[in-house]
Amino acid sequence: MLFFTQCFGAVLDLIHLRFQHYKAKRVFSAAGQLVCVVNPTHSLKYAPTRCAAGQTSAEQGVLPPCRHHEAVHDPQLVPCTCPLFSCPWEGHLEVVVSHLRQTHRINILQGAEIVFLATDMHLPAPTDWIIMHSCLGHQFLLVLRKQEKYEGHPQFFATMMLIGTPTQADNFTYRLELNRNQRRLKWEATPRSVLECVDSVISDGDCLVLNTSLAQLFSDNGSLAIGIAITTSKVHNAEDEM
Amino acid sequence: MLFFTQCFGAVLDLIHLRFQHYKAKRVFSAAGQLVCVVNPTHSLKYAPTRCAAGQTSAEQGVLPPCRHHEAVHDPQLVPCTCPLFSCPWEGHLEVVVSHLRQTHRINILQGAEIVFLATDMHLPAPTDWIIMHSCLGHQFLLVLRKQEKYEGHPQFFATMMLIGTPTQADNFTYRLELNRNQRRLKWEATPRSVLECVDSVISDGDCLVLNTSLAQLFSDNGSLAIGIAITTSKVHNAEDEM
Repeated sequence: MLFFTQCFGAVLDLIHLRFQHYKAKRVFSAAGQLVCVVNPTHSLKYAPTRCAAGQTSAEQGVLPPCRHHEAVHDPQLVPCTCPLFSCPWEGHLEVVVSHLRQTHRINILQGAEIVFLATDMHLPAPTDWIIMHSCLGHQFLLVLRKQEKYEGHPQFFATMMLIGTPTQADNFTYRLELNRNQRRLKWEATPRSVLECVDSVISDGDCLVLNTSLAQLFSDNGSLAIGIAITTSKVHNAEDEM
Repeated sequence: MLFFTQCFGAVLDLIHLRFQHYKAKRVFSAAGQLVCVVNPTHSLKYAPTRCAAGQTSAEQGVLPPCRHHEAVHDPQLVPCTCPLFSCPWEGHLEVVVSHLRQTHRINILQGAEIVFLATDMHLPAPTDWIIMHSCLGHQFLLVLRKQEKYEGHPQFFATMMLIGTPTQADNFTYRLELNRNQRRLKWEATPRSVLECVDSVISDGDCLVLNTSLAQLFSDNGSLAIGIAITTSKVHNAEDEM
């Protein structure tokens, strides 16, 4: 009996996922974009300050001194960049992608423009929605996080990080776009390198930030669709801004 | 002696304003946009809930029951829409612009695209930066407000309102754009009518919202430049979103 109940539950979940995917496809089909349904993951081992002091050293090409990696001596080894867990893994940048896929089951998508459909936005903070995006010969990590920076006031933070060095990251621009109910919000920036910690990017607020009320305006039936595009960046200077 | 000190202070203020205007012009000159320096105004008579219950009735074309206008009986009369003061004035929509200019000294600018340069972003909340924008045969009110929605955590809220009816407002789309340090943030929406209260738009969070850290990333020497553009809106539907 328990077996049949579980089977029935699994079938219902599949129908629900299929329905969400169908809805997203209907909305975004005009643009011909690939829609990826991303389910939330609770950060059970959430450690908000694990890389708090790492940013400056990462900018200088040195590894961030994450608390659980204090024993790292080889400068060519990168600690696990998955923001979900205090994972003890470390390895070379080239094998970070396979570690994230195999150990943390993070999906990877191909394409210049994709739609990230985060489900169950109502879940309590802290919650993460994560996917990898393969584009222009590189892999990027998209992190959407629901977090209470101020107690009792959860916010959503979305950023994109290059699985590469800060120098490589400077060659790209990423764009996150929300579009619903005649409202449109766009964020464009240079991706950070995964050598810098996603926690510090979020605590700096240097990413797309949404209050709960704004997130609700953009979400549809508890799911938030974020259009993602990555381009190679042009030379910027103060004169040509805006 | 006091007279000379005051004169000297006024000259210094003028030089400071001229310098800010020059800087903004230099940054935005490539786009040929009109730059308007907007100084902050403290909301001394700030009444955050004065129109809290007004939104629904304004949507239906009825006047918002602002607390200080409870005695209004003529449905053709509009209470003062200036969000700075609990102003007892009331009049027809056609004379709202001249009231705002003459009584509240709010500047009006012409042009399809302008740059709103808000100075002294560091001032404590509540603070407003306000300007009128004349475009496409209508007048719009741009309000940037620094407010502590959550105690101890000031945020910036920017919105544009049409000095006209909600039906007229539906014909337009406004865009607010921040652009600095290889980061770009764009907000596009349909303007609200001034018959709806700016306080309720901000409390709903249905506007451009910036945390202090994000505002600092976009500001230059304490001033925040917001590019503004207004267009007539096209027909939207769910199929063509994104």
